[in-house]
Amino acid sequence: MAQRNVKEQIIEAAVETLHKKGFNATSVQDITEAAKVPKGSFYNHFDSKEELAVEAIDRYWRMVLSHLQELRNPDVAPMTRLERYFDRLANVARSGEYASGCMIGNMSTELADQSPLARGKLETVLEGWCSAIGGCLKEGQADGSIRADLDPQAAAEFLLNSWEGAVMRSKVDRDDAAFASFTKFAFSGLRALS
Amino acid sequence: MAQRNVKEQIIEAAVETLHKKGFNATSVQDITEAAKVPKGSFYNHFDSKEELAVEAIDRYWRMVLSHLQELRNPDVAPMTRLERYFDRLANVARSGEYASGCMIGNMSTELADQSPLARGKLETVLEGWCSAIGGCLKEGQADGSIRADLDPQAAAEFLLNSWEGAVMRSKVDRDDAAFASFTKFAFSGLRALS
Repeated sequence: MAQRNVKEQIIEAAVETLHKKGFNATSVQDITEAAKVPKGSFYNHFDSKEELAVEAIDRYWRMVLSHLQELRNPDVAPMTRLERYFDRLANVARSGEYASGCMIGNMSTELADQSPLARGKLETVLEGWCSAIGGCLKEGQADGSIRADLDPQAAAEFLLNSWEGAVMRSKVDRDDAAFASFTKFAFSGLRALS
Repeated sequence: MAQRNVKEQIIEAAVETLHKKGFNATSVQDITEAAKVPKGSFYNHFDSKEELAVEAIDRYWRMVLSHLQELRNPDVAPMTRLERYFDRLANVARSGEYASGCMIGNMSTELADQSPLARGKLETVLEGWCSAIGGCLKEGQADGSIRADLDPQAAAEFLLNSWEGAVMRSKVDRDDAAFASFTKFAFSGLRALS
């Protein structure tokens, strides 16, 4: 088995396992078993489970990132882009029966205090995510659909944090209520009064 | 040492340890050591760490509950009550340097999928918490300060979930930004237009 393949298999298995079970409930052996590679091969590629977790967060972030491009689609009104974006995320949660939540959110609550390495990566990820949302809000301000007086960066942070809170709640309630109230209220203070 | 005391010491230590370190990173021994009781005494009182976690969530909830009474203070305008309430929670997070977050939020992301027992308890807690917030919103609707057309229950869920998302974010950023954007935007869609 090529070295690169083993590392790749470990990262892919880690994304899935850490997302589903969290960091502390997952052992290195859980990951190597899921990756179908020998346990001993793990330390050829990673110094620690913590180091792998950071790589896994980065990999998950790349998936998030690939969907953020829809927030730059000039053919759709900025507010509609945002609504559709979060609707799509809600569909992902729904299709997984709300069980796993968002890996970024899960790692934020579980790992930010335990691992400075993970906290640094999560900070970068959340900043990048907010920046994409903020860019869309700025376009809405330019076309007059979003209140000109609001700080797009702070508003983007509010939207993303509120979203993460809704995902957290949906893990407990196992239903759509948190997403429905997000959709109903998160955008209401942002729209320009017509 | 009286039996009741031992059980009480274990629960108190569990609230602190589980809040700070999470469920899976905490062993029964961590808890009995923090409680300063013999490890063997644990199973005289609890069948499992899971059972203790549910008791600890309930204990934490009773602390939350004791502060929810300020949301019923008739001497303060309902919206001001809500703003002050969340300001107070932000102060608690700040005084702990944002490290531990909210135990209810932490357990929601870490444990809801792993433990049906904990999930059930968290569901009850979050419902009760929303109900207190919703009661305050209803008073604001009655006095005309909060939009009459909004569903107070859904708005309360949005406020609490958004708050939990802000707490999650503050664990990563270790600053007040998430609370500042919450304060700025969470209430803006709720106020009646004057």
